[in-house]
Amino acid sequence: MRMKKILVPIDGSDYSIRALDRAKELGEFYKAKITVLTVIDIERFFVGAGSFENELVEDGQELLAKSEKILGDYPYGFETVYKKGNKANEIIKMAEENNFDLIVIGSRGLGGFTRALLGGVSQKVVSHADTTVMVVK
Amino acid sequence: MRMKKILVPIDGSDYSIRALDRAKELGEFYKAKITVLTVIDIERFFVGAGSFENELVEDGQELLAKSEKILGDYPYGFETVYKKGNKANEIIKMAEENNFDLIVIGSRGLGGFTRALLGGVSQKVVSHADTTVMVVK
Repeated sequence: MRMKKILVPIDGSDYSIRALDRAKELGEFYKAKITVLTVIDIERFFVGAGSFENELVEDGQELLAKSEKILGDYPYGFETVYKKGNKANEIIKMAEENNFDLIVIGSRGLGGFTRALLGGVSQKVVSHADTTVMVVK
Repeated sequence: MRMKKILVPIDGSDYSIRALDRAKELGEFYKAKITVLTVIDIERFFVGAGSFENELVEDGQELLAKSEKILGDYPYGFETVYKKGNKANEIIKMAEENNFDLIVIGSRGLGGFTRALLGGVSQKVVSHADTTVMVVK
């Protein structure tokens, strides 16, 4: 069964870049459109730190520029999307509202504060999304 | 990066059969060898119930026969493996000792006693295996 739409949440970690490579490969097989999503969780940081928020936004945009480079001449179409909010919630919402067939996500994100083998965001996405999820290790 | 070995744990649930279909499709893309694994958790049942154990063993063997039918003329090789033990532990052990590149697993198994969206076995596998995992929903 063809997967027509693949969602790749990235945060700049090595795992998320590996996930993007894998998604590209699978996308070429399925001839799927790829959406790269970066979510900036402003709430997690000091409220009112305006300049810091700007920094996060810039980081997010740099990240999307980097992923555009990786996808480069990907032949089946891709887009980059930027959102603010709770990372896992935004990923799940995006996948369900837009009928994605597959989420490809890294197993661990940046700045993991826990020692869990699976990062909290990936854990929540794989548990709660209605979409098939590939967790890249 | 080619995935050469794909592990598919099955328990007869619709999700696990869907996972097998998906694994076959991905395996054709990657030209991968597929291993179908059924684990019978005897411990979960009444100890000493010999005839019941035989029944479980027969169920497991039927399941593997069914998966052989599904894989039918799969061109890159497949095998079916049958183990006794804790399901998640055996899946993780198998994947790591034999250097699998990918585990494709259904999101929910048979007889889920919890209302969790993700079944306990899949949850444990995706959290603890060192291998990339696709959870099929």
